[in-house]
Amino acid sequence: MKLQLALDMVDIEGAKTILKEVNDVIDIAEVGTPFVIKEGLRAVTEIKNAYPSLKVLADLKIMDAGEHEARIGFYAGADIVTVLGVADDVTIQGVVKAARECGRQVMVDMISVADIEKRAVRIDTFGVDYICAHTAFDVQGYEDNPLEEMKLLKQVLQYAKPAIAGGIKKDTLKQIIPYKPEIVVVGGAITGRPDIRQAALEIKEVMKKGTIP
Amino acid sequence: MKLQLALDMVDIEGAKTILKEVNDVIDIAEVGTPFVIKEGLRAVTEIKNAYPSLKVLADLKIMDAGEHEARIGFYAGADIVTVLGVADDVTIQGVVKAARECGRQVMVDMISVADIEKRAVRIDTFGVDYICAHTAFDVQGYEDNPLEEMKLLKQVLQYAKPAIAGGIKKDTLKQIIPYKPEIVVVGGAITGRPDIRQAALEIKEVMKKGTIP
Repeated sequence: MKLQLALDMVDIEGAKTILKEVNDVIDIAEVGTPFVIKEGLRAVTEIKNAYPSLKVLADLKIMDAGEHEARIGFYAGADIVTVLGVADDVTIQGVVKAARECGRQVMVDMISVADIEKRAVRIDTFGVDYICAHTAFDVQGYEDNPLEEMKLLKQVLQYAKPAIAGGIKKDTLKQIIPYKPEIVVVGGAITGRPDIRQAALEIKEVMKKGTIP
Repeated sequence: MKLQLALDMVDIEGAKTILKEVNDVIDIAEVGTPFVIKEGLRAVTEIKNAYPSLKVLADLKIMDAGEHEARIGFYAGADIVTVLGVADDVTIQGVVKAARECGRQVMVDMISVADIEKRAVRIDTFGVDYICAHTAFDVQGYEDNPLEEMKLLKQVLQYAKPAIAGGIKKDTLKQIIPYKPEIVVVGGAITGRPDIRQAALEIKEVMKKGTIP
């Protein structure tokens, strides 16, 4: 089980300040969508150059021009790029093509997919690496947490590994851990805390032990 | 009827070279999604600074954190930002809130929306400015051109104005013009031509006369 830290509401300097504290605790640094929009993919390049052994995910949420946009991400240094589950099949397949040719990986973000099970079964045949149950930031609190969707993924996926994202905190982790997603994405529950390193260590500890310390 | 020029496969210098030739011909300069990913929103800021009287659209294809991401776009100088029609209602409403507070505009991109008519009728009540029929780059040639969807929009929209995008060329414009979309988005049919200015002038001429010269 890997810990992916979402860096969303930051600029490059802010991200570097955070990563200085937690780069040895987390497994994947996510350059979040608002961060990509703000800074462009040089954010990915600078983080990858600063921490070459850390996996970097570019949350591009690709919706069209799959192969082209994925290549832009991989050429900038991303180990993983994201594509939307609501995108056309051809777009997702284009992202997979670019990933295979570059020796990198693909995560499908299932945000706002109406029928998770049906769509996951189909996307699972495309050769993607991860499929992520994701409750949108904008609907957190209004709707279910992403756990129910992740359970569905766990049941139906034969090839891709399940991931989970969307407002995950230390106390929601307890419910998630038994289902062993490959990747758990945490953002504000680490970056929004006064002691970022301590928060990351506690999350990582829960992931190891499967219980709240 | 306005001509929006999509700048996709370029960097800032490339975009400026193109705009030097056509800034007085086009109505809206679109900083396309791959361009935003590559350069970040400083692409919008630099184009707006170079051509203050030209409208600039940031094709952010917002899918989550609507209000926050829209603000990043508007603060960078965008006159219009895009949000996906497949996004949650709350996300689209957040983008509209940011636009109203900043005195800017919103375009909804209907790419990959399953039931265009039903979704457009709902989104039309949110106060968005434009709703765009858009055939994905990845499916152009496989599926219908966006004209049929634009006709549907024209029939059902009461508040928002219809726009059209997706592989539009001079000869497809002839079919589109009679339906009078508010915005026609053209990319490669201008930027991919040897004489960019001449190509833009010809497109603009078709838009004025409604026939192919």
